[in-house]
Amino acid sequence: MTQSRTEIASLGEFGLIRRLSENFTPTLPDSVLGIGDDTAVIDLGTEYGLLSTDLLLEGVHFDLAFCPLKHVGYKAIAVNVSDIAAMNGIPGQVTVGLALSNRFSVEAVEELYAGMRAACDDFKVDLVGGDLSASRSGLLISVSVFGKVAKEKVTYRKTAKPNDLLCVTGDLGGAYMGLQVLEREKQVYMANPGMQPELEGNEYIIQRQLKPEARMDVIYELRDAGVVPTAMIDVSDGLASELLHLCSQSGVGALVFEENIPIDEQVYLIGTELNLSPITAAMNGGEDYELLFTIKQADYDRVKNSPNISVIGYMTDKPAEIQLATKGGNRLPITAQGWNHFNQ
Amino acid sequence: MTQSRTEIASLGEFGLIRRLSENFTPTLPDSVLGIGDDTAVIDLGTEYGLLSTDLLLEGVHFDLAFCPLKHVGYKAIAVNVSDIAAMNGIPGQVTVGLALSNRFSVEAVEELYAGMRAACDDFKVDLVGGDLSASRSGLLISVSVFGKVAKEKVTYRKTAKPNDLLCVTGDLGGAYMGLQVLEREKQVYMANPGMQPELEGNEYIIQRQLKPEARMDVIYELRDAGVVPTAMIDVSDGLASELLHLCSQSGVGALVFEENIPIDEQVYLIGTELNLSPITAAMNGGEDYELLFTIKQADYDRVKNSPNISVIGYMTDKPAEIQLATKGGNRLPITAQGWNHFNQ
Repeated sequence: MTQSRTEIASLGEFGLIRRLSENFTPTLPDSVLGIGDDTAVIDLGTEYGLLSTDLLLEGVHFDLAFCPLKHVGYKAIAVNVSDIAAMNGIPGQVTVGLALSNRFSVEAVEELYAGMRAACDDFKVDLVGGDLSASRSGLLISVSVFGKVAKEKVTYRKTAKPNDLLCVTGDLGGAYMGLQVLEREKQVYMANPGMQPELEGNEYIIQRQLKPEARMDVIYELRDAGVVPTAMIDVSDGLASELLHLCSQSGVGALVFEENIPIDEQVYLIGTELNLSPITAAMNGGEDYELLFTIKQADYDRVKNSPNISVIGYMTDKPAEIQLATKGGNRLPITAQGWNHFNQ
Repeated sequence: MTQSRTEIASLGEFGLIRRLSENFTPTLPDSVLGIGDDTAVIDLGTEYGLLSTDLLLEGVHFDLAFCPLKHVGYKAIAVNVSDIAAMNGIPGQVTVGLALSNRFSVEAVEELYAGMRAACDDFKVDLVGGDLSASRSGLLISVSVFGKVAKEKVTYRKTAKPNDLLCVTGDLGGAYMGLQVLEREKQVYMANPGMQPELEGNEYIIQRQLKPEARMDVIYELRDAGVVPTAMIDVSDGLASELLHLCSQSGVGALVFEENIPIDEQVYLIGTELNLSPITAAMNGGEDYELLFTIKQADYDRVKNSPNISVIGYMTDKPAEIQLATKGGNRLPITAQGWNHFNQ
């Protein structure tokens, strides 16, 4: 019998997920939303439950050569909380699946969990369960998170409307540039273990890479301001990739103004030093874990003075046109695809 | 600076979990129960939510030399559903985190998901989300499950009372003996790839290993009979280990009658052939995914005629005495610890 073999890289992560998810349309009456958003949505009666899972693998998502275990633990919780934030929800409980080889000591595991403990405190979530296993190689962390949201406040990716304003929290590109600095210093260190790493002046972007924050502060800020976003997604793969998700799922286009994209000064400085484009880092770098969301124009006054929110463009009724208006006055199509671990 | 190094194997899986969980006492008002039972329990208002995570790793939990991917997928869902059953709950939604190396093709992943699809149908759960990542080696599956239970029906490990009857579903030891047969045939095959595996006569125990079922049927049966167990746990590590959990968490002892432990005839036959004790397989083998539970004596008449339930003993007020009354008339302390992957 001849069996055909299709490489996963030929479909990519998103292509494979799309292909698999076709067979998993939810059937239970309380399954409000299945695959295709930042979390699943479950009807709890008076409100909605939110459920999501993220994996972090050594050698794929983090490098223990420069990423302390405590930071890995913190990040594992934060990126899951970010998924709940992206649904406009409040996180509650997390479970942690941990697989590790005998290279790791009890003390190492305790460092990892100290980071999780800190993140649980910062984001006010309880670690309520999990699983622990030996692995043949390396460290793998699987975190699942459960949260809740009032039914009228849940925010999907698929509900942006033409003329809605496009907003992003914080600043972008820092996590990617921080990673480049860490990779550079690792190379230097491997060539000459006596050298001290040159991290000075890059503390902010390194922090962005090693210890990302979920923007629950902005979720609470929007609540206080009485704003329910019309659509939302978290920025894990870069602005371009996330904007394409919002547009394709909502059936709208978008125009983004380059000059409005928030980028920290350190990103510009290190970009010059490493000959890397700050705007490319923001568009395609990934791992910033900011929130990308749309609001009604009528809500503009409620966000315009927030130091945490930048209005970077607006949605249009032309789904085929997702464009960047550059500082130079050009309009470029936004097409980037973000990370694809299977192609690396 | 001198740092001490403690090997994980010196604490064991349960010891490490105990040590880590000390720092994670739940603090949120809706976190009803954290680490320490088959699932966490979350207050949803009118009912409870149940949340749990299990990992399955190639080379640790399954061997693709004899375990088809479809069965691995089925098992990944079933063992999680079993955790919900063990809380007397009804499973609803699952998320799947999947890490795999480029050794796996799209077709292989589809086989895996076909098994998950079958399990979702059998147990009436929706696969609603997940994550997909490359791994440096092997296949890892992380499944999280969410379920619900009426507040008055939730069943913990810690609530067994002296004089409660101890019950177990189905039969025990089959999954362990099935694994021994598969391991034997793998050795034969590796020595002589032309040989056909000798599996005839062992179909039942091989099925028990490769395609375990969560006993949701018994959960529905108990509901119909009007029985709420006083305590419950699923049998993933062997009867001995699970009974010790029930007793220590409930502060009770137990007396188990060897002659009442349900063991399939195939377990006896292959036990003779391989010189392995059937009762040891039942007590310490693991992976049967049956339910071990206690009921009030007053409920005996409601379960005594069930072909799915065996009453194997009773709980006592002597926490220090957890004993097996052997067929030969002796009383042996039950002390086995189940699997510890970190010692293998």
